[in-house]
Amino acid sequence: MKFQLKFKPIKYTNKKVIIIDQTLLPQKLKYETITSYKKMGEAIKKLKVRGAPLIGISAAYGILLGINTINTDKFNIFYNNFKKVKDYLASTRPTAVNLFYALNRMETTLLKNKNKSIKEIKKILTKEAENIYKEDLELSYKIGKAGSKLIKNGDIILTHCNAGGLATSGLGTALAVLFVSHQEKKKFKVFVDETRPLLQGARLTTWELLQYNIDTTLITDNMAAFTIKNKKITKIIVGADRIAANGDTANKIGTLNLGILAKYYKIPLYIAAPSTTFDFNIKSGKDIPIEERGREEVIKFRKCPSAPENVNVYSPAFDITPANLIAGFITEKGVITPPYKKNLLVLK
Amino acid sequence: MKFQLKFKPIKYTNKKVIIIDQTLLPQKLKYETITSYKKMGEAIKKLKVRGAPLIGISAAYGILLGINTINTDKFNIFYNNFKKVKDYLASTRPTAVNLFYALNRMETTLLKNKNKSIKEIKKILTKEAENIYKEDLELSYKIGKAGSKLIKNGDIILTHCNAGGLATSGLGTALAVLFVSHQEKKKFKVFVDETRPLLQGARLTTWELLQYNIDTTLITDNMAAFTIKNKKITKIIVGADRIAANGDTANKIGTLNLGILAKYYKIPLYIAAPSTTFDFNIKSGKDIPIEERGREEVIKFRKCPSAPENVNVYSPAFDITPANLIAGFITEKGVITPPYKKNLLVLK
Repeated sequence: MKFQLKFKPIKYTNKKVIIIDQTLLPQKLKYETITSYKKMGEAIKKLKVRGAPLIGISAAYGILLGINTINTDKFNIFYNNFKKVKDYLASTRPTAVNLFYALNRMETTLLKNKNKSIKEIKKILTKEAENIYKEDLELSYKIGKAGSKLIKNGDIILTHCNAGGLATSGLGTALAVLFVSHQEKKKFKVFVDETRPLLQGARLTTWELLQYNIDTTLITDNMAAFTIKNKKITKIIVGADRIAANGDTANKIGTLNLGILAKYYKIPLYIAAPSTTFDFNIKSGKDIPIEERGREEVIKFRKCPSAPENVNVYSPAFDITPANLIAGFITEKGVITPPYKKNLLVLK
Repeated sequence: MKFQLKFKPIKYTNKKVIIIDQTLLPQKLKYETITSYKKMGEAIKKLKVRGAPLIGISAAYGILLGINTINTDKFNIFYNNFKKVKDYLASTRPTAVNLFYALNRMETTLLKNKNKSIKEIKKILTKEAENIYKEDLELSYKIGKAGSKLIKNGDIILTHCNAGGLATSGLGTALAVLFVSHQEKKKFKVFVDETRPLLQGARLTTWELLQYNIDTTLITDNMAAFTIKNKKITKIIVGADRIAANGDTANKIGTLNLGILAKYYKIPLYIAAPSTTFDFNIKSGKDIPIEERGREEVIKFRKCPSAPENVNVYSPAFDITPANLIAGFITEKGVITPPYKKNLLVLK
């Protein structure tokens, strides 16, 4: 990968992990050095690191911090202590799939090498954690490269939520497309929806784009239609949480709005996502369950109350954009265009 | 008018004015008694009363508070003091048309009756201020009555921003339709867009609807599309700031989004507005100037920051919804449907 990251959400070096404390963004960029697996667990719990891929990487590095202090040459003692570290890290965010994936991968690697010396096993596990990090970065870079072929000089791009480096090893998905295009010296501008209720666009995406000096303008979500028309948006690019076999896409609430606006104004909506986000067991969007969030996020803006305490709230975290509103999927295997039922099969 | 207001944003009684301090809503409902024209001016300046029609009414009542303390039987002394009061009130919100309209109407009435006794003039001006209030209430009620014919049992209605009683004498425009329908015992539910950046939907519209015990649910603006689909919204009803001769409508930013969603989901978008909102000197939406607001409102809500200090911001206060996305205009002269160029002429 030939890419210079402008910020590293996580880095393992000299038996320490350096993270960005994301709870302080965008007001403050503070790097924090983590020296124990307990502290790493706390950082995950307190959302100092967040985003599924980054949580996985953090957990793998957390394992390293834990095993570095196990001084034994007996496998059983080592393994028992490893399990303690792993169980603790697994308890930090109970629903994050990437967390368990990373921890189990570390354990599988350990067990595969149980006949080697503890010193050797520690080396192999360090390599494995680094691989988890590098594979994520490589995946993001491939998505960025594939997507950058779509970006032309003069493009004015709208994005939503945060499909960026802060949720991953540093490049993200939708934002990887922008970062790689910027590296390739393409000239374009970006508008960012603030993305209520949790404001990931306002807080994180704008911050990331500004690190690369990309021309970035923040709007509120309800300004999207008028901005598309008035500022002549040429493309919409967002990430995805889950994609069905027919191309129907679950992503942050508000994506469906943008799909309908894209159709009305005849501009393309692209979804950037790795092949792991496609779930071929799910036939169509109808079968994707939609999480509903609590009322507090909607009746407040961060800590500022904005609505009567006793009003009802409806707060779906995601919506489903039907495949016919999507111009293409930007994946590590290239850009996939309709017909999706057939063309998405290359990802299977 | 046969309607029992559940809250009165303003009331003149016993030479005092009672207002709701709207800066404290929705967290607190506090009535404040205003006894001098200076205090009324401060209430307008501090946005304790806001909304064009309500500012006009407040100014007219402010005149009464000012003239009640002028103890003279000489017209010239009375008129000079009146002018002082009027000039002060006119200085409180320099761009509010209704403010100047109300103040000038009070002065015209005064001058028309200059040959009467001061006591008589005071009585006539009191009547005139009450008329300004009553005419606004009557207008709102007629809009409500006209619109209520469109509302059916089982309707699920989406509204945006605050076209409500708090901006007027108590009933509003879009919300007058809902209040009158509720009075007529129709069963319906309302979803309210929070309406960033200033959150008039979250702060004011939900509060008003709850005063009438109307079934009210708050959503963020970007939830509109998924809510229309998932909660089976049947109608969208909003207010307007200015309407061109061809029906193109300027209203709070986000209305254009809703127009496009209404077309996509084949549900009607209605605009509720008095005939005074129609500007026949403006041919189409292209000729309506759009105010752009400052960055502070978008990178913050109240005192809670949400975005990097140095990000660009685009913040149009209004957008233009083309007439072909609008199913009808709800006015005091009835509901007007296409073709607009011809049918709107009844309002001229």
